[in-house]
Amino acid sequence: MNLKNSQYQAIMRQYDLRQLQHRHLQSQRYQEICDRLPAYRQLEEETASFCADRARAAALGRKDVLQDMQQHLQELQEQKTLLLTQAGYPADYLELTYSCPDCHDTGFIGDKKCHCFKQAMVDLLYRQSNIHDVLIKCGIKDGMTLGFHHHFREGDYIVNMVMEEVHKMGIKDITICASSLGKAHDPIVPYIEDGTITNIQSSGVRGKIGEAISAGKLKGLAIMRSHGGRVRAIESGETRIDIAFIGTPPCDDYGNCRGIGGKSDCGVLSYAMVDGDYADKVVAITDCLVPFPNFPAHISMTKVDYVVVVDAIGDPKKIATGAAKPTTDMRKLMMADYCTQFVVNSPYFKDGFSYQTGVGGASIASTISLAKIMKERNIRMRFGVGGLTKPMCDLLINNQVDCLLDTQDFDLAAVESVKNLKHFRISAGEYADPFNKGAVVNKLDFVILAALEVDVNFNCNVVVGSDGVITGAQGGHPDAAMGAKCTIVISPLVQGRI
Amino acid sequence: MNLKNSQYQAIMRQYDLRQLQHRHLQSQRYQEICDRLPAYRQLEEETASFCADRARAAALGRKDVLQDMQQHLQELQEQKTLLLTQAGYPADYLELTYSCPDCHDTGFIGDKKCHCFKQAMVDLLYRQSNIHDVLIKCGIKDGMTLGFHHHFREGDYIVNMVMEEVHKMGIKDITICASSLGKAHDPIVPYIEDGTITNIQSSGVRGKIGEAISAGKLKGLAIMRSHGGRVRAIESGETRIDIAFIGTPPCDDYGNCRGIGGKSDCGVLSYAMVDGDYADKVVAITDCLVPFPNFPAHISMTKVDYVVVVDAIGDPKKIATGAAKPTTDMRKLMMADYCTQFVVNSPYFKDGFSYQTGVGGASIASTISLAKIMKERNIRMRFGVGGLTKPMCDLLINNQVDCLLDTQDFDLAAVESVKNLKHFRISAGEYADPFNKGAVVNKLDFVILAALEVDVNFNCNVVVGSDGVITGAQGGHPDAAMGAKCTIVISPLVQGRI
Repeated sequence: MNLKNSQYQAIMRQYDLRQLQHRHLQSQRYQEICDRLPAYRQLEEETASFCADRARAAALGRKDVLQDMQQHLQELQEQKTLLLTQAGYPADYLELTYSCPDCHDTGFIGDKKCHCFKQAMVDLLYRQSNIHDVLIKCGIKDGMTLGFHHHFREGDYIVNMVMEEVHKMGIKDITICASSLGKAHDPIVPYIEDGTITNIQSSGVRGKIGEAISAGKLKGLAIMRSHGGRVRAIESGETRIDIAFIGTPPCDDYGNCRGIGGKSDCGVLSYAMVDGDYADKVVAITDCLVPFPNFPAHISMTKVDYVVVVDAIGDPKKIATGAAKPTTDMRKLMMADYCTQFVVNSPYFKDGFSYQTGVGGASIASTISLAKIMKERNIRMRFGVGGLTKPMCDLLINNQVDCLLDTQDFDLAAVESVKNLKHFRISAGEYADPFNKGAVVNKLDFVILAALEVDVNFNCNVVVGSDGVITGAQGGHPDAAMGAKCTIVISPLVQGRI
Repeated sequence: MNLKNSQYQAIMRQYDLRQLQHRHLQSQRYQEICDRLPAYRQLEEETASFCADRARAAALGRKDVLQDMQQHLQELQEQKTLLLTQAGYPADYLELTYSCPDCHDTGFIGDKKCHCFKQAMVDLLYRQSNIHDVLIKCGIKDGMTLGFHHHFREGDYIVNMVMEEVHKMGIKDITICASSLGKAHDPIVPYIEDGTITNIQSSGVRGKIGEAISAGKLKGLAIMRSHGGRVRAIESGETRIDIAFIGTPPCDDYGNCRGIGGKSDCGVLSYAMVDGDYADKVVAITDCLVPFPNFPAHISMTKVDYVVVVDAIGDPKKIATGAAKPTTDMRKLMMADYCTQFVVNSPYFKDGFSYQTGVGGASIASTISLAKIMKERNIRMRFGVGGLTKPMCDLLINNQVDCLLDTQDFDLAAVESVKNLKHFRISAGEYADPFNKGAVVNKLDFVILAALEVDVNFNCNVVVGSDGVITGAQGGHPDAAMGAKCTIVISPLVQGRI
């Protein structure tokens, strides 16, 4: 990033302006305090007169008067601070403030550009670095459908960031078409209530959005589609996305997106790929702009209209919710064991088999117990599919599987595993779109799933709780169940919640 | 690949049938020879009577008669062979023949399956393994447009293989939309002459196709588009491909295509990606079927309708025409040196610059001389683009460039370099489509090109020779020239051919 002289001067003018504003604020506050606290004004006058006296004496050759000066000034200062705090002001209320405490709004720390200077360069060079501007450029208007992905999971900032701006602009009747929505998106509930958002398409919803929909607050439709079903709906034209917002950990100025290599790594961008292919306008939002080319791109620059640079696209701590811990719940371990016994005694359990699990405690535990038997019987897996967690990635590390096919990373071990050359990223379409020419789920031998409710005909519900409130997500549940040769749903007969 | 019992038996029945046919053929020939050559029949009778006599004598205890028996039989055989060859028959005309000389049509060599058995398995399991069948399945009819790529260059078998079958079926009025056509495709000229092929769209043509078009033998239009222009034409609907044929070195049964990992490696499949995206039907043709999943796929299974397995998709020796040898032509070296002097004295020659060359002798030589100056001045290239040859790949090996962006490999060094993790494959669209949202050529600082003719206003011709015959290909010439900040065309003022 190189600046022209005029651009450099424009940034330096911003710093001058900022310093001026802070000095102005300081003098405003001083005036306010002197007006409101006469005792403070008196102390100020006393300080001034004290200093003047001592200065005169010093000028006349009396060096000794300076000796106790500092201590006296300190006492005066303490009295003033006391007055301020007693009146309810912060102790530093009258100190000079800075937009950037690191460089004190000079733009430089020593002879090096401060981070705020670099950010100003980015803002200047990439004028679209602003959600509001990009919404205008994309022609945002009432009734549009906006696309989002959920790779940042409970650490996602993108949906709220965009919808807050849409709301500020007074846009109404928006359809959100997200690959999933979670508790991180509770802040958009007011926009459902006031008609900013009137339709929601997702693989599931949790938290307050689920409660709002269940309480009938959504004016239009809530459509819950599987991951493969979302791709199908978009490809077939059943759903048309007007503007897609793709949070991408690193991105270059031409829009090459990657799931790894930034400060908010999410591993893969599988769910957003269909948005890149089909949305009318595609906006990449990043907090880590890198030099062109950001290759290999998970979503290509050829699909991206605008690149927006923001401070943060997600909370890395919540993107991956920590390493998946093996469950210690005896009941779940027993269920996992039953499941594994079934798997290893079925005809599909042989060298070269393929396997997927969901991320329920029992499902994850069943991968661990299966790995043991694979080792004992010297049976190797051809490919594992996911929604991946540590136990699946361990299979790759321990050379028990040829490769992993990844649409989503549920923990840090999985995000880290993406760097393995046999850990392949696939799009949601490659994973499970029933309308394309060949989806991975159709090649599955086993899929191990969970369910909220199972009826006596084995119909499974994974979205609505027994209390009638929408509280879960189907993800790729129906896709994998349809495609796999053997689908196992692990579920206890009695749940504690009943 | 596992066979069911019934499938195994079906293949063994084929072997039984084949043995029966060969024995039948042998007895037919024997009858024919006995009828046509009475002397032969007489020798046969003599042989039979001689053997019967000796057998009787031996049975009566006269072991000595067997001593000269073998020599006499040998003499009789030699006389018979002489009769055959004198009558114009091959010496082995009456020997038992085999479809497979390796296993003698038993399907096994020792206890191992013969290669012909494995091929029979492939044929049985992949019934679409037949160009004719797949053309029927794709609904081939008069007037269709067929798509091809030219990554196998002068070693390509695909175009001829498909067009021969189309011709046999009596289909007329075909438009060929290839990324390029070369001398390897001379055999399709008769199909131009008889109206099987009436339109050709390519980036250029060479050899007899060029001559045929130049002589007015093509009934319809010959349209020469740049590589980026072909993508644009297909994406915009200007050209619609009915059936695309994608030769892919390895492929799995679901159609995941890769440019490397087979027996006919071509490195990348960049030109075929748009065919995968837009053609109505997509046929992958491979000579190396591998287990699912053949990842990372360069063209995804989600785009491929049929997989056809054939014996060979190309001649590996001609795919890459050997390592690009640095030219020794003094004039070209001087031109390269002039070019490099211009480059290094231009303002764009600085750390992080980007660079592409064509594959003319002088262009390649200029990369070599540029590399020296980059080393002297400690200047590093950010990315190199190609159509790649060894000198560009050497930049990566010698750590003088961050990464290479590859649409085509011109020599074995480039095909090998694809395995480097900083050697990235890009589609022809990512390279140069002027209608997409961001093409690599727009990020180029320099492109070094050649030309057949340059006029005084610097208009360049790279397709038609001075004799008016179409004899070249523009490739990405106009795309890169339009996109790059600095375009240099290296051309001598006088060519030997004038």
